[in-house]
Order: sequence, then C-alpha cells, then structure tokens
Amino acid sequence: MLIAIPDYSDVLDAYKRIKPFIHKTPVLSSRSINEILDAHFFFKCENFQKVGAFKFRGACNTVFSLSNEEAQKGVATHSSGNHAAALALAAKIRGIKAYIVMPGNAPEIKKKAVSGYGGEITFCESTLKARETTLKRIVAETGSTFIHPYKNFQVVSGQATAAKEFIEEIPDLDIVMAPVGGGGLISGTAITIKEINPRIKIIAAEPKNADDAFRSFKSGKLIPSVNPNTIADGLLTSLGPLTFKIIKEKVDDIITVTEKSIVDAMRMIWERMKIIIEPSSAVPLAAILENKESFTKKRIGIILTGGNLDIENLPF
Amino acid sequence: MLIAIPDYSDVLDAYKRIKPFIHKTPVLSSRSINEILDAHFFFKCENFQKVGAFKFRGACNTVFSLSNEEAQKGVATHSSGNHAAALALAAKIRGIKAYIVMPGNAPEIKKKAVSGYGGEITFCESTLKARETTLKRIVAETGSTFIHPYKNFQVVSGQATAAKEFIEEIPDLDIVMAPVGGGGLISGTAITIKEINPRIKIIAAEPKNADDAFRSFKSGKLIPSVNPNTIADGLLTSLGPLTFKIIKEKVDDIITVTEKSIVDAMRMIWERMKIIIEPSSAVPLAAILENKESFTKKRIGIILTGGNLDIENLPF
Repeated sequence: MLIAIPDYSDVLDAYKRIKPFIHKTPVLSSRSINEILDAHFFFKCENFQKVGAFKFRGACNTVFSLSNEEAQKGVATHSSGNHAAALALAAKIRGIKAYIVMPGNAPEIKKKAVSGYGGEITFCESTLKARETTLKRIVAETGSTFIHPYKNFQVVSGQATAAKEFIEEIPDLDIVMAPVGGGGLISGTAITIKEINPRIKIIAAEPKNADDAFRSFKSGKLIPSVNPNTIADGLLTSLGPLTFKIIKEKVDDIITVTEKSIVDAMRMIWERMKIIIEPSSAVPLAAILENKESFTKKRIGIILTGGNLDIENLPF
Repeated sequence: MLIAIPDYSDVLDAYKRIKPFIHKTPVLSSRSINEILDAHFFFKCENFQKVGAFKFRGACNTVFSLSNEEAQKGVATHSSGNHAAALALAAKIRGIKAYIVMPGNAPEIKKKAVSGYGGEITFCESTLKARETTLKRIVAETGSTFIHPYKNFQVVSGQATAAKEFIEEIPDLDIVMAPVGGGGLISGTAITIKEINPRIKIIAAEPKNADDAFRSFKSGKLIPSVNPNTIADGLLTSLGPLTFKIIKEKVDDIITVTEKSIVDAMRMIWERMKIIIEPSSAVPLAAILENKESFTKKRIGIILTGGNLDIENLPF
C-alpha cells in the first residue's frame, strides 16, 4: 500500500490555514525542575490550546481543508476524547455540523464538552464494533466526511504546527519529546523538526502498559496494542500505517515508562509549574525521571499535549 | 498614632530593588470565562511568582531594604504560610539567615517549603501566644529583624509592584480586584492603581467567614476577626492599622463571598484556564459570580495571588 506522507510544505499550508483560529500557546520553563533534573527544559503548553489539547490543530486543519461541497455535509468521528471536542469546535467555527459517535457510558464531562461546542452526539454501545457500525450508518445517512483522529494526512499536518511554533521560539534544542498514542503528534513533530534542524533528536515516550509503538518501532512491524490499560488515557490507541511510516523514518527513539513515573512526573509539573496537565502530557517527563543520566545538561523541548481531566478523580 | 503610608515613589523604589530577583508574571485571559460572565477578564498570575505567591515581592523588598549591619543578623517571622517561604527565599538570595517560627503541627508540605529555601525553623505550640513568645526570644537572641507579613511599610511597597506590572501591560481597565486578608496586597495595589489612573475602581473580595475587612471598612473602625474559618487559608488574618488606613482612603468597595462561591470560582479557573490557584486566589472571581450584573461588559483585572495548596486534599 502506498501511503502519502506530509512534508514540511504541507505543514506550512496547514499553519496558514489554521493560524486565525488556534492559540499560539506559550513556552514555559521551570527553574526548579531544571535544578532537580540538571537539564534545561522548555514546555510547549498545548494544554492552553483551544479545547485544552493540541488535537484542535489537526481537527481545524482537516475541517478547513474540505471543499465547500464536502463541508456542507458536515464531519463525523467516533471518539470520546479530545479529538471529538476538537472536531466539534472546528466544525462550529466553519459553521458546519459535527456528528460524534460516543459510547453511552462515556464520562458526563466528555459528553458536555462535545455538546458544549455544538457537536451532535449519537450514543451507542461501548464496543469498537458498535462505534464503527454507528459511525458508518451516520456517514451514509448524512454524506458527512469521516475524520479519523490520526490516520489522516491533514490531521498529521495540523498537529505538526505545534512543533513549528516551538522551534521558531526556541531554536537551539538538543532533543524534542512528545508522547505517542496513535502517533499523530509525534509524527507531525518529527516532520517539522527534522526539516528545520535534523540534528535535533526526536524521542517519543509511551506508557509500558500501552507499548505498541515501542514494539512496532523495535520490530519494524506494526503491532497493535491488546487491552492497553494506562492512566494516560490519551495514549490507549495504536499506531496506524501513516504514523508508523513517519515514525520509522524520522523518530530517533521511543522510551517506555511505568504508571508510577507518569504520576510522579504529572505531580512535579502540577506542583512546580502550577499548571494543569492531563496524565498523557506527563509521559515524556516520566521518561526523563527514569533515565536521568541520559538527559543531563541537555536542552529538552517537551510538548505538553493537553489539560483535560476530571479534577474530582486525581491520581494523587 | 501616626502611620506613614507608602506612596508611589516607594513602590518604584521597591520595584527597582526587587526586579532582578522576581518573575515578571504573565497576564492571562480566558475566552470561555469572558463568554460565561459577559465581561473581559485579565488575570495577573502571581501563582507563577517565585515560591508560588505574590508574597515574595514584599519579602524580597524588605530583605533588600535592610542595611548590611541589620542584614547580617538575619530576619525572623512567625508564619506557616506563603510569607514564611517567601522570607526564607529572599534571605537565601541575600545570603543571610531567616528564622521562622512555626507551630509543630503545621502541614509537612509547609515545613518542607521553608526548609527547602534554607529557612531555620523553630517549632512551638500552636497558640498565637506561643508563637509570639518564641519569636521574641529568637529576635532577642539573634538580633534579627522581625518582618511582619503586612504590618510593614516595605512589605506593602513590595506587594504594590504586582499592580505596577499589571497596569503597565493592560492600562485600560475599569476595575482591579484582589482578595483581602491582612490587606498587604490590596492596599499596595490601591496605592499603585490610584496613582496611575484614579478612575479605575479598586474592589477587594473577602470570605464572609473571615469578614473583618468588610466590617472594618463599613464601620470605619478596625474590627479584627474572631475565629475566622474559611477554605481561603491565606485570608484568615485581620487588617492592621497600616493596611486599614490605606484601604479606607483608596479602596472603593469590599465584597464578601460564600465558601461555595470560592470553590465554584476556583473550579472555573482550574477547568477553563488549566492553571493551579489556591482558594484565596479565587475569592475575587467568586465575588463576580455572586454579583454578575454589576460587572457585565466591564474590563476587570484580577490578581491571582498564589498557587500553593495540598493537591492531595482538594475541595472538588
């Protein structure tokens, strides 16, 4: 199967397309984290992005890439996470419909987020099969365009714009890190960074309990996760052919981490930086906590992916 | 009793003195909070200040105002809150000792913060009398200078510098709000703002359960709190003669709020802005939640005072 992968000109197109709608998120540092870990950290705060996650970049790029004819029939996805909220808001901004398929037992807070952005929710059973069947039916009925959260050229091109802002603000980095779930963010990040400065290492971080990307990367064959189970609920998905192809080509390493390190890293960012991140965002710092010596004295850029979590149910 | 109150030239002196040591904290906005409350908010994020609170400004100004002779004997205070940590760090930066008197039953996290900044802790019984007696003994033994958290000219001048940065960045405000406990921040804020633009209203916000400032302001007589009890643990203290004098002259109004509104406002800022604030910081927004109509369409500056709290023990 031939898969087209975005190059940097696609990223630049995406950026032009979405710039009026996204937040240019700040890059923050913490002297105390630098001191504790004896390295120099820069955190790109996509937790402050619209809908509270980088996913808005990819969703926005996809929605605004549609022709008028396509767009007027709306967009659709099945998701209970940040992609659903992101797609709903992007569709709202373009003035089109977003059909979101969600399991009936999804958390109330996620349902509210999607409907708050004007998404039209269809509930179904919580199995993957039920979700896919329901989505297919809705796409057939409405003629809407299915926007997959990462098996999508324009989604990856959109996610790649976070790294563009990042590297333009902080050019002299040794390493850029992001978590890997479906791989949309890390593959977009790698496309951007390797174009701008190929000497910068790209390191993905992944929970041990959902380590399909690690195993695929090491074996060279796409191996999906079976029953992944991690507090980093944004990283339960497995790589797809598009993101795996980019990762094989452009990512330098993947490090897996324990659940304990994820909570420790999340706590460190909450307490030292006074910002709210969801567990998935903490996975790269967790990789550093587990491998301190390899990162000593380095200048490390980390993308904090999102800030959406149930504050009534924290792991502390 | 004649009380000297700082004027704006004292604030400018303070700013010059502390500028190399403080963070110039960012001003953040939230479109969703603006939409929900139909007003335009600007949040001055002193939760990102060193030691996680505006208190570092006043402590730093006081420590760096001492003569070399005074300084070499150190500084002292009794406190278990942000002032203690702030004084310890300011003293560390100047290379002098900070003697901190704390009740033995103070939370472990507060003890750690003070000792982490190099403060020398003396534990005592938890009564006010025990604290004062212990402090007096230490001051007598060491010759150190007692730095009260708000009954102090240079502390108020230092706290006033947050408003200076704020109004220089966002000049066209209708209202500036801050919480009131001992009154150091709101009085300093009023000195600065009324000098720069006397048409801007200064509104203090206070928990109903610790409403000494409200009652003092309305009656014209200093009435201390008796057994205050609020989740906003930075606001348990009562006004002193210095801060009361400034507030009477320069503050336009004081609004009191319920405990429920404080938690609602805190939750709104956590969820919508993805930043961590302590309950005291939420009190001004709580006042707006309880009085929406009075603030509609206004441009409102709010000082978020700090971000220190036990994340294992949240009110959500």
